Amino acid sequence: MSAYQNLHSAFRKIAYYQHCLTILEWDQEVMMPGGGAEERANAIAEMSALEHSAMNQPEIQTWLDVCAEADLTADEAANVREMRRAWQNSNLMPEELVREQAVANALCQQQWTTLRPQNDWAGFSTSFTRVVELAREQARIRQQALNTPTPYDAMLGLYSCGDSASLIDETFAQLKAILPEMINTVCERQNKTTRVNVRGEFPVAQQQQLSHNIAATLGFDFNAGRLDISAHPFSTGNPGDQRITTRYRTDDFLDALFGTVHETGHASYEAGLPKAWRGQPLGLARNMSIHESQSLFFEKHIGTTDAFCALLAKQVQTLFSADVSLSADELKQAVCWVEPGLIRVSADELSYPLHIIVRHEIESALINGDMEVSDIPDAWNQKMQQYLGLNTQGNNKDGCMQDVHWPSGAFGYFPSYTLGAVNAAQLRAAMETKIGDLNALIAANEIAQITQWLHDNIWQWGSRLESQELMQRATGKPTNAAALITHFERQYGL
Amino acid sequence: MSAYQNLHSAFRKIAYYQHCLTILEWDQEVMMPGGGAEERANAIAEMSALEHSAMNQPEIQTWLDVCAEADLTADEAANVREMRRAWQNSNLMPEELVREQAVANALCQQQWTTLRPQNDWAGFSTSFTRVVELAREQARIRQQALNTPTPYDAMLGLYSCGDSASLIDETFAQLKAILPEMINTVCERQNKTTRVNVRGEFPVAQQQQLSHNIAATLGFDFNAGRLDISAHPFSTGNPGDQRITTRYRTDDFLDALFGTVHETGHASYEAGLPKAWRGQPLGLARNMSIHESQSLFFEKHIGTTDAFCALLAKQVQTLFSADVSLSADELKQAVCWVEPGLIRVSADELSYPLHIIVRHEIESALINGDMEVSDIPDAWNQKMQQYLGLNTQGNNKDGCMQDVHWPSGAFGYFPSYTLGAVNAAQLRAAMETKIGDLNALIAANEIAQITQWLHDNIWQWGSRLESQELMQRATGKPTNAAALITHFERQYGL
Repeated sequence: MSAYQNLHSAFRKIAYYQHCLTILEWDQEVMMPGGGAEERANAIAEMSALEHSAMNQPEIQTWLDVCAEADLTADEAANVREMRRAWQNSNLMPEELVREQAVANALCQQQWTTLRPQNDWAGFSTSFTRVVELAREQARIRQQALNTPTPYDAMLGLYSCGDSASLIDETFAQLKAILPEMINTVCERQNKTTRVNVRGEFPVAQQQQLSHNIAATLGFDFNAGRLDISAHPFSTGNPGDQRITTRYRTDDFLDALFGTVHETGHASYEAGLPKAWRGQPLGLARNMSIHESQSLFFEKHIGTTDAFCALLAKQVQTLFSADVSLSADELKQAVCWVEPGLIRVSADELSYPLHIIVRHEIESALINGDMEVSDIPDAWNQKMQQYLGLNTQGNNKDGCMQDVHWPSGAFGYFPSYTLGAVNAAQLRAAMETKIGDLNALIAANEIAQITQWLHDNIWQWGSRLESQELMQRATGKPTNAAALITHFERQYGL
Repeated sequence: MSAYQNLHSAFRKIAYYQHCLTILEWDQEVMMPGGGAEERANAIAEMSALEHSAMNQPEIQTWLDVCAEADLTADEAANVREMRRAWQNSNLMPEELVREQAVANALCQQQWTTLRPQNDWAGFSTSFTRVVELAREQARIRQQALNTPTPYDAMLGLYSCGDSASLIDETFAQLKAILPEMINTVCERQNKTTRVNVRGEFPVAQQQQLSHNIAATLGFDFNAGRLDISAHPFSTGNPGDQRITTRYRTDDFLDALFGTVHETGHASYEAGLPKAWRGQPLGLARNMSIHESQSLFFEKHIGTTDAFCALLAKQVQTLFSADVSLSADELKQAVCWVEPGLIRVSADELSYPLHIIVRHEIESALINGDMEVSDIPDAWNQKMQQYLGLNTQGNNKDGCMQDVHWPSGAFGYFPSYTLGAVNAAQLRAAMETKIGDLNALIAANEIAQITQWLHDNIWQWGSRLESQELMQRATGKPTNAAALITHFERQYGL
């Protein structure tokens, strides 16, 4: 076998190990009774170790080096590029550091679950300081090996490879410059209107039917996927078998429904990846920023059109009791309502980027060594004041301690949420110049045209192109905040 | 590390691979959408190969040989005995034969699904002949290595290790001598009574609630297990996480319910295995004959007592619509109704052993080379005539082609069903001498005393004892049909 064939078969095997891990983890979140937790944790650890050792067998490096000189097709060369990337991410770090991080991050995350509700920053910061120290070491090693401009850039590569810190800084600067003012304007205008009450009593069974119907309308194939319930909505799966989840509260149906719409976007991307490259790195989704652009395209673009709200109003009327009557306009008001708050995960579309910018500014300074853990609460409060006019002094629970990302060591993940929002708006603008107005397409029952465009321009490419090549090809330019700002202006009549 | 410690850790790792396979297969039967089939089949094949190669690493044999001379505790020595058994089962066969069998059995099983409904014995027998040839070769190799009296004995060891063909022959001879006459007597008596109609309209949701309640009453712990739906009822799981399934038809609730009762017996055994030996061969269930004794103890002993039927009648009254009213006596009549038929899986308690004896006599002759594939249909018909008075001439669909076991190469499995029935009755008799009448215990709400006895005498032993040692210890004698015959006499007032 050639070096390329050897790599092909080694990565195919690794993908089967990942298949197992995907199902073990999905089952753990969705199906497993509590009694199975201990054995499952051990089985997952064993499979992760197996995957790690398959990726780190010494031959991989040899084969990669041979392939660098080999006569490969462009697709094969791109596959090798992605293999090398995956191999580096797994291989760069000394085993000792990997183990130390696993322990420190697990401990900190575990303490976080009890210390956050107690608002105990002092207690938390002890174990968190260790997490940051180790992450800085990780970033330093990665920076050195990958030659990135900053340590933080090296961390970004784990989630949004191809999107640099400078691209993020520029994009976020554009948003920071206009969003606070925009939010004020929208809130002032909202003050003059009556907010519709969308709360009520919505039985879970009917909500499940609603989520099922809407996912199917958006193209989710229930012969190649499932929709279940979990504590937090997520999307996972294997080729031909996408698994999405949502959660239901009986006083509000929009929360679960838009969770489903969001996850359907993720699942559609996965389902549309190139079949010929199943089990190879080239066949995987590009990165988190592109992934989030697909979920947000579904949630914030398709999901907020007049036509989608009309379709939803009809379903609501059919499924829930006769005294629930919400018009398309009322639903649209509810899903587009702007109201700055302390918590990121419940933030509206206009506030959300500012929550991310707070985190990005703090974590990049932290990883680059320009800020210390003890500075975080004040920095958080000062930025929240400045961008969203909200005070978090003494309230770290709903401030810098609110997210699981940092205690679990995931520095560099946050920007992908807002890069995703930026990419989604930019893709919509490009799509509309090609196939027409999104709202009109949905009104004409042509959602398949929309998903076909996403398939042709994003999904089918897998990891063939770098993220900015993919955006350039699909939209004519790299990631840029202009389209998102235009979208906000249009959405809120500014 | 000592050789024993090396083995301990190698088998612990193999058990984690089996954990993955268990969940991949459960998910495939219960949760997976059709689109996932291809990748799942490949992932299962990859994990099976991994398990096989872990079991067949050359060091295992070396460690086993060292342990044969080592100073081990009695438990450790028994664990090594079971390790050697598992290693032999995996290792005895040449890889080429394993592969050939996998292909031939899969092909024959696949053809069987279409040729059985068409009653096409001629078409079926071509690929089935190859299955038998390879099974004979397998039996010959196993016989030689394991020094068993016959090739068929060597096959029995795969399912009911410790139970010899001669033990089975003796046991079955006892049953064959009395069952045909017994069935006639019972049927004649039944002819003079009115058969109660237990059919009706039973919505699935209520049946699920009934199955859930009854499983819980029998001690199934829903914090350490699940009850789901699948095409055929089965029981699987991992430590702390038992997964049972049943299937519902809306015109009959007894089918699904007794499926649940049966699987609850299997699951209770698994849940009661010794925790200290999790992940080690000693911690596994003894063999299929003991396993089936637990499911049949629940189904045929607990499940047919007056007290259980009374408890069931109460549940039925609460859960189903007011016009379903069945007394305990009526339910008991339905679950104990005797009516010989062609199909094993729907056979009553008295006919069932005869169905097994037909299969055992044919498959033992087949594997030992005393019968050819072309002889099967006539042999089947002749035996069904003789034992059950039923004709299968020209109806191979409901005769020798009815089971999946043979086309999938599982020769030697059938006896465990009836050995299980024999063991169950023998355990009940021993239990009743110790803790009193089963019916009285259930009536007194003391099911926990029954399961505690099973735990102490069967479950907690795992594979510490050989099957006949286990039966001897629990009941004072090896497996013997006397107690089952006494049970039948008592159950049917003979």
